[in-house]
Amino acid sequence: MTHEIAVVPGDGIGQEVTPAAVEVLESLDIDFEFVEAEAGDAVKEATGEALPQETYDLAASADATLFGAAGETAADVILPLREAVDSFVNVRPAKAYPGIDAVRPETDLVFLRENTEGVYAGIEDRLTEDVATLTRVTTQSASRRLAEFACDYVEDSEHDGFTIAHKANVMRETDGLFRDTVAEVAEERGVETDEVLMDAFATHVCLDPAQFDVVVCPNLAGDVLSDLAAGLVGGLGLLPSANVGPDRALFEPVHGTAPDIAGDEVANPAAKIISAAMMLDYLGHEEESEAVQAAVETTLAEGPRTPDLGGDASTSDVTNAIIDRL
Amino acid sequence: MTHEIAVVPGDGIGQEVTPAAVEVLESLDIDFEFVEAEAGDAVKEATGEALPQETYDLAASADATLFGAAGETAADVILPLREAVDSFVNVRPAKAYPGIDAVRPETDLVFLRENTEGVYAGIEDRLTEDVATLTRVTTQSASRRLAEFACDYVEDSEHDGFTIAHKANVMRETDGLFRDTVAEVAEERGVETDEVLMDAFATHVCLDPAQFDVVVCPNLAGDVLSDLAAGLVGGLGLLPSANVGPDRALFEPVHGTAPDIAGDEVANPAAKIISAAMMLDYLGHEEESEAVQAAVETTLAEGPRTPDLGGDASTSDVTNAIIDRL
Ligand SMILES: CC(C)[C@H](C(=O)O)[C@@H](O)C(=O)O
Ligand SMILES: CC(C)[C@H](C(=O)O)[C@@H](O)C(=O)O
Repeated sequence: MTHEIAVVPGDGIGQEVTPAAVEVLESLDIDFEFVEAEAGDAVKEATGEALPQETYDLAASADATLFGAAGETAADVILPLREAVDSFVNVRPAKAYPGIDAVRPETDLVFLRENTEGVYAGIEDRLTEDVATLTRVTTQSASRRLAEFACDYVEDSEHDGFTIAHKANVMRETDGLFRDTVAEVAEERGVETDEVLMDAFATHVCLDPAQFDVVVCPNLAGDVLSDLAAGLVGGLGLLPSANVGPDRALFEPVHGTAPDIAGDEVANPAAKIISAAMMLDYLGHEEESEAVQAAVETTLAEGPRTPDLGGDASTSDVTNAIIDRL
Repeated sequence: MTHEIAVVPGDGIGQEVTPAAVEVLESLDIDFEFVEAEAGDAVKEATGEALPQETYDLAASADATLFGAAGETAADVILPLREAVDSFVNVRPAKAYPGIDAVRPETDLVFLRENTEGVYAGIEDRLTEDVATLTRVTTQSASRRLAEFACDYVEDSEHDGFTIAHKANVMRETDGLFRDTVAEVAEERGVETDEVLMDAFATHVCLDPAQFDVVVCPNLAGDVLSDLAAGLVGGLGLLPSANVGPDRALFEPVHGTAPDIAGDEVANPAAKIISAAMMLDYLGHEEESEAVQAAVETTLAEGPRTPDLGGDASTSDVTNAIIDRL
């Protein structure tokens, strides 16, 4: 079976790390058909549209999409692309790697972020000169779908359970519905949960990240708390993510376009290649996924390293070293 | 002139640290009239109401309120009390003290949090079995009032300017209005600003807190980001806060009721006493405010210390040491 993969490098270092991930995938004994498409600032400049319809359609039909990064137009690109793959959960591991400088080296977390609603429902109004409103939406159905995924996830990965992070002491109806629904599904499924207020989580994860493990949260909470965890492991540079839908998924590094180094061929491809490893797992190639993940980890620990990690290797030096270690 | 001060110890260690702060204030040569009132879990248990009307009325008429902490009923107590003093800004310094174990010892931040609207406007609906909504409100007037305060604050404290933290790439109308209004006022006032997305702030403040200084943000962003900063300085235990309104203000430590140690008389009174120092400054007693702040800092550095900081002193040992150093 051939997997059709949409490849959307986007802007900046997206143009460097995405081909690096494709090279790693091509070195495996798996049938891929890669189809490239454009998105981001550059195509907006050229055509007026940050996300051309054909890119949207491609992501909506391919088995999986590899996305790089977008600049100013990030929200205009990534939010519709998540919709294109009908992604209801954003899976964000935040793990400190041996040998990499981290504020909290014991951090090893996975965020399962609701990916369709909350403040991202995007219903805003400027009612008067003085007043603007945004309607935050929470549904039982989306909370339930996320919870089922979370239960599968902890069962498959042999985690003990998960923590629900929310702000239901203030957002009583909406985060209350989220919390209650997720906890109910977990109870039906026999999965253990505990809960924490998102503000308390922010304090406690700094003090002792090892007390948390898998964290399930609403959309914006997941955005902010996973970026916080990124800070604890030493930056966005090494974090992968998966936007998973029922029939397809999109994989992206958490980092941005890094305009300061874009074009210099020294971008660290690790996060994008780990994102590709998540895609391998998603497509059913667990063994190859683990091999790629292990090769990246060995390379992070032993080099070669790009300048962001104190080395002087190029993107392709690192990519080749990872391929050699497979 | 006598200052009328409402004293609302609340639950748990609020009952221990609030009298400690009052003792420190009584040791100064300033005329206070302290009037005590109840709020929290215990009074709810006894009367059915977490915040009795007379406590609300007292806070709404006193010159300032010293609040301790509340347990399960925290939101039912603190949100109406903020309203009682018409507080439009929550001032939250997060500073690492010499001699105290901190994840990021170089942290020295002040959050100026919008204190009336955003998701805290509290407009929620359960539309159907499946759907709940919350209306997030942003007004130009509240943003403007906060911005004026922020400009006064940086001028008085000789800061260079402030950073606006927001999520206007997703909440375009609401956080867009907030950001644009705050930036406009600052420009009119000749105060420098820069801006950062709240998720990016969460990453960058872990990596390098010294790059930030005064941070102005919407209500929930301020809640989460200041609690994150609390984690970086070693916990909520040392953080004070001021809820400032046009004519009165309420001062509270950021910590909770600490049920595990409540009643043992070993609660660390530092955050509550620093909150009282903020009150002294608010009431025009800058010199005494600085003296109390300095006495607390010396005591944190040289002891005696409560068990949370590795010592074996009691609340009153620490309080007496602070008074002795005045
Ligand atoms: C670019 C932005 C819209 C996006 C988000 O808020 O989800 C980003 O921060 C992320 O986390 O992928
Ligand atoms: C108790 C809760 C309602 C409150 C808030 O969210 O503002 C608390 O977290 C705080 O920051 O003072």
